Amino acid sequence: MTEKAESSGYKGEVLNALRKAGCEVGDIIRVTAGGKSYEGILIPRSESGDTAHIVVKLKSGYNIGIRIKPDVKIERIGKGAKPMFASPLLPEQKPELPKAIILSTGGTIASRVDYRSGAVRSALSASDLYGVVPELADVARVETEIVFSLYSENLTQQHWSQLAQKVAEHIAQGADGVIIAHGTDTMAYTAAALSFALQNLPVPVILVGAQRSSDRPSSDAATNLIAAVQAATKAPFAEVAIAMHETVSDTSIAITRGTKVRKCHTSRRDTFKPVNATPLARVNNGEVIMLTDEYQKRDATKKLILKPDFSEAVALVKFYPGLDPAVIDWHVEKGCKGILLEGTGLGHVSKYCFDAIRNAVNRGVVVALASQCIWGRVNMNVYDTGRDLLNLGVIPLDDMFPETALVKLMWVLGQTSDAAEAKKLLKINIAGEFSPRTMLDKFGVEGEEADGN
Amino acid sequence: MTEKAESSGYKGEVLNALRKAGCEVGDIIRVTAGGKSYEGILIPRSESGDTAHIVVKLKSGYNIGIRIKPDVKIERIGKGAKPMFASPLLPEQKPELPKAIILSTGGTIASRVDYRSGAVRSALSASDLYGVVPELADVARVETEIVFSLYSENLTQQHWSQLAQKVAEHIAQGADGVIIAHGTDTMAYTAAALSFALQNLPVPVILVGAQRSSDRPSSDAATNLIAAVQAATKAPFAEVAIAMHETVSDTSIAITRGTKVRKCHTSRRDTFKPVNATPLARVNNGEVIMLTDEYQKRDATKKLILKPDFSEAVALVKFYPGLDPAVIDWHVEKGCKGILLEGTGLGHVSKYCFDAIRNAVNRGVVVALASQCIWGRVNMNVYDTGRDLLNLGVIPLDDMFPETALVKLMWVLGQTSDAAEAKKLLKINIAGEFSPRTMLDKFGVEGEEADGN
Repeated sequence: MTEKAESSGYKGEVLNALRKAGCEVGDIIRVTAGGKSYEGILIPRSESGDTAHIVVKLKSGYNIGIRIKPDVKIERIGKGAKPMFASPLLPEQKPELPKAIILSTGGTIASRVDYRSGAVRSALSASDLYGVVPELADVARVETEIVFSLYSENLTQQHWSQLAQKVAEHIAQGADGVIIAHGTDTMAYTAAALSFALQNLPVPVILVGAQRSSDRPSSDAATNLIAAVQAATKAPFAEVAIAMHETVSDTSIAITRGTKVRKCHTSRRDTFKPVNATPLARVNNGEVIMLTDEYQKRDATKKLILKPDFSEAVALVKFYPGLDPAVIDWHVEKGCKGILLEGTGLGHVSKYCFDAIRNAVNRGVVVALASQCIWGRVNMNVYDTGRDLLNLGVIPLDDMFPETALVKLMWVLGQTSDAAEAKKLLKINIAGEFSPRTMLDKFGVEGEEADGN
Repeated sequence: MTEKAESSGYKGEVLNALRKAGCEVGDIIRVTAGGKSYEGILIPRSESGDTAHIVVKLKSGYNIGIRIKPDVKIERIGKGAKPMFASPLLPEQKPELPKAIILSTGGTIASRVDYRSGAVRSALSASDLYGVVPELADVARVETEIVFSLYSENLTQQHWSQLAQKVAEHIAQGADGVIIAHGTDTMAYTAAALSFALQNLPVPVILVGAQRSSDRPSSDAATNLIAAVQAATKAPFAEVAIAMHETVSDTSIAITRGTKVRKCHTSRRDTFKPVNATPLARVNNGEVIMLTDEYQKRDATKKLILKPDFSEAVALVKFYPGLDPAVIDWHVEKGCKGILLEGTGLGHVSKYCFDAIRNAVNRGVVVALASQCIWGRVNMNVYDTGRDLLNLGVIPLDDMFPETALVKLMWVLGQTSDAAEAKKLLKINIAGEFSPRTMLDKFGVEGEEADGN
């Protein structure tokens, strides 16, 4: 056992077992446990607390953790030819394949453990990618560009604008599809932002992330990324969408419209859920299966309309019992031009907020409302409270959930500073953010997934 | 047809059909449509826009709307003996039955159309109840008290305190179970509040609401209320819980712990979903079926511990891209003692908020964090951002979702003004608000329900 393996996260019993079998990180190994046999590349561990498992990257690109007990047999069956972070030997490009651009912004999907140093690097280059996911070379001619290397919680409206412009450039240069690797925390906000900023798209723009980095067992990084490239280059639609696990199993990746998708679980791989919508498509064994007829069509002759401006003078105020309405006044005093109220139920806030809302509207602030329920549709005509709010000038945002509603308000006030015009624009369906009343109501998942954290 | 029916909401074609059949509101009628036959009491309509349906209260307590087409047959088969709002002829109390107290606070479930005047009244008296839900007399000796008549978005911490005290009084007077009729908008907040305020309960306290008032087709008011009384008087647990439809069908009512339940849809009857938990019980055909072994047991000899104080100096700040961190400073300046951050993912906010958070903590403010994902568990040890926030003194609230986390922070700061003590109390499992790591992860529903609004 060389120093290489020792620095790769394995310790104690497991390190001893690997030593005994003469295996080191990067080797192709066969592990036989409980009557089953697994073949793949031994990859390093980054979680120092765990001394019981080894991590093997299977041929499918899927990483599994195998608990090392006395009856588990480990054999070294070959020297690993890949992954090869050290020497970026790029696979040959196949000229007949479509051209895919992968833009990276940071986050878990763009981070990996350097196989030699053991350190985490968050940059993503074409060679890194082919090292981790060599299957991509069979799907597309992949080019990559690092746009940012940021945790997604640090992205703001300015980053959305830059990213929209970058996508537009690559589309102008003939990309058949654009993929954006992004941290999952605020990926849905960015997806909504790009949905409004990139109109009349000729090709798809697919955001993709990972809940577990590629060096960890059960990482979803490779499967999500492959599916994202397949959707971006093959799908018949041309919209902004998110590609992430549809269920806890690894067999299908949901492609969901950027305005109708939300991160709903802190750690599960199927964390992104459609809200008041079904996914646009599902990627299953490399096949892109459309799940709806209602989408904007791919058409290379379409001329992209770029509207990358977002206002920074917009705030979200979530209503809760005991909310101090003076926070609304404070936002108005600070020069806020739009306020998204996250109301309760069908679209309510307490009557003790009415004066502050009236004042805001009178001062020219656009006040809109979405429901903290998340699912369903606001209807402010049912109860007095809703009618009172409508009379105050509050704009009901139908079946948009709060995060998309907030991003739309930021975008609308980036297009116009006229409150009346902004209110009109808010109610126009720009990017599928409003669904028809008869939309199937499906939300959530069932089942259990071990919490890897 | 008398004036009675004319003032009860029926118009046009439908009114003509009722006239022809000689039926008036309160009559027992049989309607035959599409080969099916429905028997029940003709009840008035409150939605003036609809002239196509009649509403019949079936024997099950369920209201259905039947579209009146030319081939529909309406027969009057008897004079309705009930409902009888006008003359409160209370059914005989059965002394062998347990004693249930129904406290009303307002909201849809406590509102009804007066059968004579057509006006909506939001008060709930014992006679009103027996008029609408006479089945209750077979379940319990029901007593009622109007505590408030408010839309739930107008309730605050002071109302939670009063309600907790009122519940304690009735338990001291020998109630075998307490039911609280409540608007659904903030019912989960109140349920969490009572869960912390009412400790060591001898009997269950069940909050119940309705998404559709009892005069509307498909109202869930009666079925939810009956199940709530059954759970309050018969269930083996003694905790604060919410009783609402488990699915879109009318066959089962979920009873879910007050700290683990959230309103997740604006209009569906199965809007309340367990978060990081399973329901405690299900009521099915009058049977209370326990779904877990882990609950506080009913025991009339237990001595209730009442802790009804909640701080008003607590704010929720939801993080989003572009959040102005000065809002945190503003809350601190205003004298806020606790701030609940609604972070992203595993528990993050942008680094540009760090200074404001550091300042708040240095000023003695308790800053805690829950995830806007809603489902899952925060884990602030995985990424730098989380570790930085922990180092700043932010308290991670594990698998509590933001609304319960906010209410707990309000309650904790109602118990102590010492920040160190408050932080300790925040992390103690008081009312099942923390679940074990292996808890089944189930969320959401599938299927479709016509939107009644």
